[in-house]
Amino acid sequence: MLLLRRCHSLTRLGPVGTQRYRAAPSLASRAVRLCSSKRDDQRSYQHANNGASWKHIVAGLLTGTGVMLTYGLHHQEVERADADLSTTAESSCLLVFSHDEVTKHRSLEDGVWVTFKGGVYDITEFVAMHPGGNKILLAAGGALEPFWALYAVHDQDHVLEILSQYKVGELSAEDLKKQEDAKSLDPYSSDPERHSVLHVNCKKPFNAEPPPEILADSYITPHVLFFKRNHLPVPQVDPASYRLNVEGLPGGALSLSLEDLKTRFPKHTITATLQCAGNRRSDMNKVKQVNGLNWGISAIGNAKWSGVRLRDVLLAAGFGPEVAKWARHVHFEGLDKDVTGTAYGTSIPINKAISEEGDVLLAYEMNGEDIPSDHGFPVRVVVPGVVGARNVKWLGRIVISTEESSSHWQQHDYKGFSPGTNWKKVDPKSAPAIQELPVQSAITVPADGAVIDRSDETLTVKGYAWSGGGREVVRVDVSLDGGKTWQVAQLRSGDEGQPAEPSPPPGRAWAWKLWELTAPLPPEAEELEIICKAVDNSYNVQPDTVLPIWNLRGLLNNAWHRVKVKVTED
Amino acid sequence: MLLLRRCHSLTRLGPVGTQRYRAAPSLASRAVRLCSSKRDDQRSYQHANNGASWKHIVAGLLTGTGVMLTYGLHHQEVERADADLSTTAESSCLLVFSHDEVTKHRSLEDGVWVTFKGGVYDITEFVAMHPGGNKILLAAGGALEPFWALYAVHDQDHVLEILSQYKVGELSAEDLKKQEDAKSLDPYSSDPERHSVLHVNCKKPFNAEPPPEILADSYITPHVLFFKRNHLPVPQVDPASYRLNVEGLPGGALSLSLEDLKTRFPKHTITATLQCAGNRRSDMNKVKQVNGLNWGISAIGNAKWSGVRLRDVLLAAGFGPEVAKWARHVHFEGLDKDVTGTAYGTSIPINKAISEEGDVLLAYEMNGEDIPSDHGFPVRVVVPGVVGARNVKWLGRIVISTEESSSHWQQHDYKGFSPGTNWKKVDPKSAPAIQELPVQSAITVPADGAVIDRSDETLTVKGYAWSGGGREVVRVDVSLDGGKTWQVAQLRSGDEGQPAEPSPPPGRAWAWKLWELTAPLPPEAEELEIICKAVDNSYNVQPDTVLPIWNLRGLLNNAWHRVKVKVTED
Repeated sequence: MLLLRRCHSLTRLGPVGTQRYRAAPSLASRAVRLCSSKRDDQRSYQHANNGASWKHIVAGLLTGTGVMLTYGLHHQEVERADADLSTTAESSCLLVFSHDEVTKHRSLEDGVWVTFKGGVYDITEFVAMHPGGNKILLAAGGALEPFWALYAVHDQDHVLEILSQYKVGELSAEDLKKQEDAKSLDPYSSDPERHSVLHVNCKKPFNAEPPPEILADSYITPHVLFFKRNHLPVPQVDPASYRLNVEGLPGGALSLSLEDLKTRFPKHTITATLQCAGNRRSDMNKVKQVNGLNWGISAIGNAKWSGVRLRDVLLAAGFGPEVAKWARHVHFEGLDKDVTGTAYGTSIPINKAISEEGDVLLAYEMNGEDIPSDHGFPVRVVVPGVVGARNVKWLGRIVISTEESSSHWQQHDYKGFSPGTNWKKVDPKSAPAIQELPVQSAITVPADGAVIDRSDETLTVKGYAWSGGGREVVRVDVSLDGGKTWQVAQLRSGDEGQPAEPSPPPGRAWAWKLWELTAPLPPEAEELEIICKAVDNSYNVQPDTVLPIWNLRGLLNNAWHRVKVKVTED
Repeated sequence: MLLLRRCHSLTRLGPVGTQRYRAAPSLASRAVRLCSSKRDDQRSYQHANNGASWKHIVAGLLTGTGVMLTYGLHHQEVERADADLSTTAESSCLLVFSHDEVTKHRSLEDGVWVTFKGGVYDITEFVAMHPGGNKILLAAGGALEPFWALYAVHDQDHVLEILSQYKVGELSAEDLKKQEDAKSLDPYSSDPERHSVLHVNCKKPFNAEPPPEILADSYITPHVLFFKRNHLPVPQVDPASYRLNVEGLPGGALSLSLEDLKTRFPKHTITATLQCAGNRRSDMNKVKQVNGLNWGISAIGNAKWSGVRLRDVLLAAGFGPEVAKWARHVHFEGLDKDVTGTAYGTSIPINKAISEEGDVLLAYEMNGEDIPSDHGFPVRVVVPGVVGARNVKWLGRIVISTEESSSHWQQHDYKGFSPGTNWKKVDPKSAPAIQELPVQSAITVPADGAVIDRSDETLTVKGYAWSGGGREVVRVDVSLDGGKTWQVAQLRSGDEGQPAEPSPPPGRAWAWKLWELTAPLPPEAEELEIICKAVDNSYNVQPDTVLPIWNLRGLLNNAWHRVKVKVTED
């Protein structure tokens, strides 16, 4: 059976390989054949043409880029490479290509070639398997280095191992020198300093969360502890020359300075919780491997955001009843860009953007101070009740449109799929872009694995709870016995001993609630499984377990949160 | 331990009993002592003064009235009665009271007395335990019969058994004759005819649902099959003299005829699903007894509703920016009344009522015809996305207010509580009135217990899915193996082979989706556990199991729906 599948793979490899070489016959003939003395290169070349046995370590490859991993396809390709061990021939000699020749391979038709550290790679076949999708084509015909500097997650041995199998030659010595001379600086070199207490999930781009045990200590999360989820390097924005452009409205574009925003529109303040769609992904990873940054339970925070209403700016820019007839979406574009100049971008539905009750802000303050650079200085969109990914930082451009943003982050990433869907059959169009998030809660104290002293007699459990769409959390149930019995926790909307925030109007509960339960320690129990689950005012509840909501990107984990603690004698 | 508790009960009984007799010393002295020859009455009197052993069959007592059962308290009372077996004395003689004397006992201070079939009962102690709460006081000082005719659920042996223990005497022969002469007619006698296919959960008031296997056959539910959930008798309304009164606005009350509604305001049509909060209660009953009508999965239906926007009527009645500053709720009062003249009533938040996107209708048509009498003729409120209980039928009065409705149905019933809350400690104020409902789905075909022929090779599973608050169902996952693996069902927004309804604007998906999955019959399986679960566009999901969302009233059951079928050889 295995043999049969391998034969089948061989058959499939044949024409693909043929097609690859057919794509560039003239170039191949113009290349200089070079007998390489470098062992590494030999091994690489063998990989490329014949394949060699190597491990299937792809999962988790592109965590941090927020892109989709076509693990299944790649797995298949590995099998093909394994199966093609027999036909070794002119594998010890490498072709030498000029930079000009490489640049001509920039499409699937002409082949997709890239260079890396002097090697030339024909990655045409890999494009369909690239976790980041077609974005890989941005590097076509040139050097990979600036892209990998941007998406530093590529800087791993197994990524190099994958690349090596596509090697077709070497860059000429002259062109290699030119390339090295022009090597770009690290685009992350001007990223701000961060607090050392943060747990870093990815350095470049920077993604980090605070330790859970301090997260629920303050109702308002200080900005240094607020989770940071960057898709690209932090842009350096000069507040004096900053412009926000509002486009797509009949009167033409409106360009606003920071001063305009601060002086021409009323200032509003909301307290709103932002949560990354990947919060609690690590619990999904525990039941079955997913792709994405391994967030714990702290990719969520609550802050006071001040700025102007998006609604007010849109009205000033010419939004009116006529526009309302056709406008359906509002696009946001950040000033954070990749090496090709592509900015982070996404969109929200127009009704959320224009509604007074939607409370969408163009915020220039976080917790009463200028928004820190990691959180979008000088202006970020705050779309309360909506997934973090739509709360675009370093906002540069707003566009009114009939369509959703066509960006990768709107169309491919940040969507939820059935647990039965895998990378082979996933259809991004089948699922809506995540906007409002479902009801959520987690236990911040005690930590999983904590040891409790039986002489304490009582146990205090703490955590947070929140729901998307302005739905207020109305109850948190806590179990100390793995879900057999439940007690109701105390909720609060402020710091302990401080006055609570005023109750929000219906449908506008943007801020989380902190909760706490102090209960007698169950006698004789040596281990407790502590669980929390929240209910919002639409009476939506959290699902019991992770596996039935598991999805290949590890998003939207809102299953009951569980921690186990040990109870010991003094 | 048991003995200790009983002693404690006895101690507590002492002062309560004393208080009861202290309350009416003068009346007791004016009563005629009568030696009864009726065995039943003797038994009753023993119950009242001394207690006797009787079964704890209270659960399910007031199902159908939509009220709360203080089961815990009553259970405690039973224990007291059991414990007080010793002191029997003058129990064979009954006092005789005049009607005038009975009427003086209409409060907790003066004692609460009622008559039933010639017996006089002092139910002061029972008031706190009455499942219907203080509504029992409406009967104080008079006959129970007209109330029990209205809430026919009382017509059960164990209710009579409970009553019997409170017997304190007999009504004088003269007054009994007067009462019998004035006996009211059955208030349900003018209720409309209903289709015999309906499964009747309660006759008076009428509560019934269609068989699940035909529910999802039509995207638009015909009115004869649409579940009927009446709280009181169906009122007979003359459309010519019908008036709708809008009150609480500065310009004074606005009174509108049916003709006014049809001619003075634009007509709007929406397709909206209504669901009873008790839908699927029977599955909750299976895991642990709850109180309420034993609804299956068909207390839900989807119809086209036509009428005028509540918003338009409120604006015509004087709603404006000034009113918006203070108005918080809109009360609805039906023309269906109990014998005291109390109408069915409830309220919704003002923002839902006044928002154009809220789509709240004062509907006079259902599926293109006059609303049938069981569904609210001539006018019912349709509050799409919101629990059925707020969609008031036979609408007579609308009141703008700073407060929620004070009605029983708003303040006590139709709320969700923690699974850990029991009747002893439940605090109705601790939970918000249900408005928007959570995401829901159920399997209508095959039925639980169905037998599948293995030679069919494929299995088709069908059902409905819906979510509250205008959140659109975006996916239904179906499992044929008890949740191990999942397949995605096909969704539709129309009848098979017919064009689908146009996509709703965001946040206004009021109608259900029907879904279907045809999959190969798993080979060799002798029994299948089929499960469905839906996801809405806020990515809220249904919880895995019933027990953790169990609540004493059996509301809001949206756990995965499961049916088991057998697979047999031909």
